[in-house]
Order: sequence, then C-alpha cells, then structure tokens
Amino acid sequence: MEQDMKLNQLFDFFREIDKEKTIFRQTYLTDGSRKENDAEHAWHMAIMTILLSEYANEPIDVLKTVTMLLIHDIVEIDAGDTYAYDYEGQKTQHAREEKAANRIFGLLPEEQARKMLGLWVEFESEDTPEARFARTMDRIQPLILNDASGGISWKEHEVHIDQLLKRNDITPDGSKKLWDYAYENMLLPNVENGKIKK
Amino acid sequence: MEQDMKLNQLFDFFREIDKEKTIFRQTYLTDGSRKENDAEHAWHMAIMTILLSEYANEPIDVLKTVTMLLIHDIVEIDAGDTYAYDYEGQKTQHAREEKAANRIFGLLPEEQARKMLGLWVEFESEDTPEARFARTMDRIQPLILNDASGGISWKEHEVHIDQLLKRNDITPDGSKKLWDYAYENMLLPNVENGKIKK
Repeated sequence: MEQDMKLNQLFDFFREIDKEKTIFRQTYLTDGSRKENDAEHAWHMAIMTILLSEYANEPIDVLKTVTMLLIHDIVEIDAGDTYAYDYEGQKTQHAREEKAANRIFGLLPEEQARKMLGLWVEFESEDTPEARFARTMDRIQPLILNDASGGISWKEHEVHIDQLLKRNDITPDGSKKLWDYAYENMLLPNVENGKIKK
Repeated sequence: MEQDMKLNQLFDFFREIDKEKTIFRQTYLTDGSRKENDAEHAWHMAIMTILLSEYANEPIDVLKTVTMLLIHDIVEIDAGDTYAYDYEGQKTQHAREEKAANRIFGLLPEEQARKMLGLWVEFESEDTPEARFARTMDRIQPLILNDASGGISWKEHEVHIDQLLKRNDITPDGSKKLWDYAYENMLLPNVENGKIKK
C-alpha cells in the first residue's frame, strides 16, 4: 500500500509536467514554422549534453547535468516563460519560479522531491561544473535555432549584439570551446548579415 | 581544425534532429488539446526513467536508458511514426527505420555515430535490462496520456483491450511492478467505462 501511495505521487507528477509541452518560448524551430516549447527545448539540450560533455571546461557528471536540464523549466508551468530580454519580467522571475518549484516538485515522494528541488536550485546557482555546463547548453541551444531559422526571433525582438553578449557572459564558464564555436559560427555571421543589430 | 570539423558534424546533427519536433504521434496531451510529438514523448520518458528506475526488474544504468529513450525516435524523421495498431505499416517499419538510423546517426563523428547507432539497435533488440526498461517506459507513457485525456485516441481508433494487452506483452519484462500499476490504474478503469473496447 505504501508503495502504491508513492506510485500515485509519481504518476501525479508525470501527469502534471505534461503541461510543460504547452509553455512556448520565443525561439522558432529551425524550419521557422512555429515557436518551440519547453519540453522540446529540454529534450534537445539533453541530447546535446550527452554528445558534448567532453567539451566542458571541467569534468561533469553527465546524468546529473541531463537531469537538471530535463527538469529546470518545469517551474514555467506556473511561472510562464520569461523572455531573455524581458527585463521587467526578470525582476520577479526568481520569486515566481521558486514558488512553482515548491508546488510542482512537492507533488513527488519526499526523497525525490528533495532531490529534484536540489537540482533546480543548483542549476539556478551556477555553483557547480554541472550547473555551469547546463547553463551553457541553455544559452547555445537557442542560438542554433535562431541561426538556422534565419534569425526570425532576433528580428522580431530587434535584438542587439550587446544584449546577446551580456546574456552570454556566463556561457564560457561551462565550456569556453563551445562558446567560441557558437560565437564564430552562429553569432558573428548574423551580425554581419544584419539579423542581429550592431 | 580537426576539432572544428567534429563540432561541425555535431552541430549538423543537432540541427537535423530538430525535425523530430514535427513528427506527431497518435497520443493526445493530457488536456486533449492536440497530439504529442516525438521530442515531447522522449522528454517525458526520460524524466520518468530517472524517477522510476528503482522499479526496474533488474538494476539498470540510468544514463544509458535515458540516452536510448532520448534518441530512439530520431529515425522517425525519415521513417515517420508507425502507429501501434497500423499492422500494414509495421511490416516495413524496421527496414525504414534502420535506413534512417544509418543516415541520421551517420551525421555524427564516427565514434559517437557508432555509439548512438549501437544504443538504437540495443533498444530495438530488447536484449538488455536497459532496453527492456526503456521499452516499458515507451509503453506506459502513452497509457498515462491516453487515460488522462479521457481516452480520445483509444476512442478514435476503436482500440480493443486485446490489442492493448498484446501490444504490452513485453511491458512487464522491464518492470512488473509498473506494468501491474498501469494495468490496474490506467487500463482496467477504461475498459470498465467503455473507452477501451472489450
């Protein structure tokens, strides 16, 4: 009976997080057909992490990093997506997301709730090699999509290179190699062709 | 320069797999608003695996199982989704998917291509504890969605319990406990209320 209680809690959580598939970001799919949602974004970064872990500045625990990335946007079910350049929204972002993390991870059995909440806090803190690499993925994945989709989202929001560079000041902390690669191959060409403003 | 070649291959792969977000399954989201796509399905199962691994019949390597689940539907970018009860489509499914696996994982640097292709073959074989547990997740995740969405997909396709049981003959191989739980909580009640045909 105790086990069934635990399974009930786990399956309640699985049903609840299904809502993450309805939280849309400002980034378009590579084909430009529509915006990407949080679940798709997390899936993409999890695969990237598995294949790019050797480029981390410091050795990382891959499963831990993947888990962080899979769960870190679950809070947006309650708090919504806060766009990278929505400076007003960012003032209240952390408080809104913390409340959401407590509610949603709180659906889980106690031990797992604590573990998932811990990973979410760690991601936010950027205090560990895993959190830093996860953050690098979280910054580079939308660059791939924005570049491949012809910069639709950059153009819609009239994004300046200064904003992008400020947003990415932490990106090299997880992987200097990947940041250099992204800068040269996905940012610079789009400054030159005018999709990102100077 | 050799490293940049490798990164070019990796990023080509990341751009290519973005298409998985446009491959739709027959399962509806829990709110019934639309069908789920392969990337969302994989994300959901990866989190389930992390939280349910203790219920596996045999000990599993969680990262390996998660990786399998994250990548196993990439082949559908070329081969399309073959519905669980599309018996005609299933005759050619393996050949179509194998061709797709060779092309898409072949975009990766050699070592990683071999590794990912190996995991895809292992998933298909059901020969290891990880493959069996991954298969259990692949069967149970749509049950959660079908049950929560009021059985829309079951009703649309007039699915019979016999078909579901045959489809799930392998599900207990990964986790008897989870299959028993799913059967009692997500299948039986829907036979009783008529959403699954007798």
